[in-house]
Amino acid sequence: MAKEKKLVEQITSMEEDFAQWYTDVCIKADLISYASVKGCMVIKPAGYAIWELIQKNLDERFKETGVENVYLPMFIPEGLLQKEKDHVEGFAPEVAWVTHGGLNELPERMCVRPTSETLFCDFYANDITSYRDLPKLYNQWCSVVRWEKETRPFLRSREFLWQEGHTAHATAEEAEQRTIQMLNVYADFCEEVLAIPVIKGQKTEKEKFAGAVATYTIESLMHDGKALQSGTSHNFGDGFAKAFGVQYASKDNKLEYVHQTSWGMTTRMIGAIIMVHGDNSGLVLPPKIAPTQVMIIPIMQKKEGVLDKAYELKDMLSHFRVKVDDTDKSPGWKFSEQEMRGIPLRVEIGPRDIEAGKCMVVRRDNGQKQEVAFEELDKAVAQLLDTIQKDMYHMALTHREENTHTAANWTEFCDIVNNKQGFIKAMWCGETECEEAIKNETGASTRCIPFKQEKISDVCVHCGKSAKKMLYFGRAY
Amino acid sequence: MAKEKKLVEQITSMEEDFAQWYTDVCIKADLISYASVKGCMVIKPAGYAIWELIQKNLDERFKETGVENVYLPMFIPEGLLQKEKDHVEGFAPEVAWVTHGGLNELPERMCVRPTSETLFCDFYANDITSYRDLPKLYNQWCSVVRWEKETRPFLRSREFLWQEGHTAHATAEEAEQRTIQMLNVYADFCEEVLAIPVIKGQKTEKEKFAGAVATYTIESLMHDGKALQSGTSHNFGDGFAKAFGVQYASKDNKLEYVHQTSWGMTTRMIGAIIMVHGDNSGLVLPPKIAPTQVMIIPIMQKKEGVLDKAYELKDMLSHFRVKVDDTDKSPGWKFSEQEMRGIPLRVEIGPRDIEAGKCMVVRRDNGQKQEVAFEELDKAVAQLLDTIQKDMYHMALTHREENTHTAANWTEFCDIVNNKQGFIKAMWCGETECEEAIKNETGASTRCIPFKQEKISDVCVHCGKSAKKMLYFGRAY
Repeated sequence: MAKEKKLVEQITSMEEDFAQWYTDVCIKADLISYASVKGCMVIKPAGYAIWELIQKNLDERFKETGVENVYLPMFIPEGLLQKEKDHVEGFAPEVAWVTHGGLNELPERMCVRPTSETLFCDFYANDITSYRDLPKLYNQWCSVVRWEKETRPFLRSREFLWQEGHTAHATAEEAEQRTIQMLNVYADFCEEVLAIPVIKGQKTEKEKFAGAVATYTIESLMHDGKALQSGTSHNFGDGFAKAFGVQYASKDNKLEYVHQTSWGMTTRMIGAIIMVHGDNSGLVLPPKIAPTQVMIIPIMQKKEGVLDKAYELKDMLSHFRVKVDDTDKSPGWKFSEQEMRGIPLRVEIGPRDIEAGKCMVVRRDNGQKQEVAFEELDKAVAQLLDTIQKDMYHMALTHREENTHTAANWTEFCDIVNNKQGFIKAMWCGETECEEAIKNETGASTRCIPFKQEKISDVCVHCGKSAKKMLYFGRAY
Repeated sequence: MAKEKKLVEQITSMEEDFAQWYTDVCIKADLISYASVKGCMVIKPAGYAIWELIQKNLDERFKETGVENVYLPMFIPEGLLQKEKDHVEGFAPEVAWVTHGGLNELPERMCVRPTSETLFCDFYANDITSYRDLPKLYNQWCSVVRWEKETRPFLRSREFLWQEGHTAHATAEEAEQRTIQMLNVYADFCEEVLAIPVIKGQKTEKEKFAGAVATYTIESLMHDGKALQSGTSHNFGDGFAKAFGVQYASKDNKLEYVHQTSWGMTTRMIGAIIMVHGDNSGLVLPPKIAPTQVMIIPIMQKKEGVLDKAYELKDMLSHFRVKVDDTDKSPGWKFSEQEMRGIPLRVEIGPRDIEAGKCMVVRRDNGQKQEVAFEELDKAVAQLLDTIQKDMYHMALTHREENTHTAANWTEFCDIVNNKQGFIKAMWCGETECEEAIKNETGASTRCIPFKQEKISDVCVHCGKSAKKMLYFGRAY
């Protein structure tokens, strides 16, 4: 028990210092390690295995909608980046520049892609000629670089992993449909797989992506009451197509500009999993995204038959992601590690259990223990993993609902900002000035114009003019 | 038929100009597109899907041997690259340098990784403390950059995709075992999945990797008789460990240096598939690596029932990777496209076939056609794919055997170089000078010291001194 305590004591409690708790979990759950490269991180096996499951699940969802994977170069020549005016203004200040190849200075410097709209447009300009070539539904899995000043593991890193989908369509309607379709793919993925409830909505003009006509977003609420933008889907209209000359011959042989979209989800979602589900014992992983779903821990493993039984149970559970911890550490230490790493179920098996023909099954999310007879184990594990997945979603949903507040006027708004945490729903006049004023005065930024609108009052919460939309506000990562 | 001819005519024949044939296949089979970024390429869906199958298959093989995936930063600070002397000399002349982050010049410039030994060593130096931490069996899938002057799609590109495995072990023996184990994984993968026979062997001192104690390689022979280095596995001994201070406390509590390995396979293998199996109608894909294994092509598809039957056959074959070409192109054009893209089997289905309860199945590798009754189709396709896979391997093996020559003396060696193509087996004194002289005089480089040694004569083929080893020589990509 002494050792068990020691491992747990190394984490700061989330109530004491949420930011430090977060970093502690990243390190102690073996998800990352800091690198010699400032602002970058090493994603270790336990962290990368989560990303592999995210990739596999999302990739299948993309392909079901007809998306194909491609790979474009990681470099963008400066001239290409500058073709779309809003886009270059948004990204140029935060890119890494390559100036030399080998011993020679390059004739034109190139940046490492912060995102690949310009490269896809350049490619599409050659690849699309006729309406027969449309739609193009391409995606790539890669890493991107944004030269951030302040970095945090997973949430904001100078290099991060993501997927970026880039599509081209014959009509504006089709592009808009695809933009919403992919937002829905993200939302379903978050809710069904990561057990994270999300608010779907549109970004305001101020918050939209550099060069987009409309940006849609899913917003989730972390345990500390801060919001996290969890996935975005952009409709570019034909703005990029015009800047890059991406045209197709229509059925009646007229030259038309394509309409484009892009959409991305990143390793930041690993940060979301930590901050939505984690607790003071460490990481808590939803079963569907847990690289190891069941850890079997033998008690008194040197006694004859104990390890054999542990391996037997592992074989019995082989259609789950299951491991036996047969290291020479103490059971208490192993429990503590399994908890820290967020493995959804622990199966304890010792000499007395074997005699009685049963084992102890312990849930990571709520600590509930139950004795299960060996012949029932397979069924019990299936049910428990299913229950944990659902319970975790509902716990996160309840937390969000309890931390979503309604502000009918400015006094209420300020009161909530000062005394509570979480989302604030409030009416807005539609003016960017008002939005900026709210942010400057309170620190709360507009998260989105939710698809599900409510009417809280007739007037803007800040300026009192006629209200146009209800917004979600919040402090954000 | 006019259209069919047109598509095929756009490829140069391999006998006329092999290099141009290769480029034509890359473009016409829709594998790649050139990018605005000089020396880089866009890997299009048909090309990337092959890479995804390579990744999936190799990744499973790695994980079966205990390997875990990680992700390290793409940048290497200059100081880190310089820590191992041989390594920096090998790579510094061909890296891309990042000098600015956003608007600011970096205090220390960084290169984009050409390979990640230095980053892994830097990481291991912190991550490994005790014998309990060993072995580390890590791998990453990523892109790397080498600023090549002459580039060719897949074979030599400034940016390419690969996996790089990096392991750390307690003993020299264990490191050597792992080096050979991974070479065998590559060899089995090439032969079983890509249907490409390989020669396993060791690189000479001159040809080994910058910083390695020993480099092992698999070498394959292309259709034009040139060799391709297809995968390498390096044993570093404790050289990197000493340069980076990667030490562990042994069981008896002594500080020891780890022994390391690295091993990689790249998108270059897609080039190998093209050049080993392709023909004058385009790409020919081995069934195990074909993104589409069966293309069903309806004849007179506007006739009632034809398309329905095509979809029915698709459902019947749904456990293969199968598609129906239901576009409005002519059947002849569709045949030509299916051939160009290397899809192993074509199923032709028209009104008369439907009446007769059968369809025509055509092999891509040898053009053989056979009528198959609908109720036999599933079984026939399984058998044919299996047969094609084996036949393609044997055809490649026969080609290699027919193009592997033995030179007992210098006259024979020169005669082969001047009049034949392919591998040359010959004895060697073991001196780098002699190796260099052979290359300078004939253009044939040493491919490897094969594990399977033969004794051709007692003396070196070039200098006549006592021979130490038999080598494979060849002109190489």
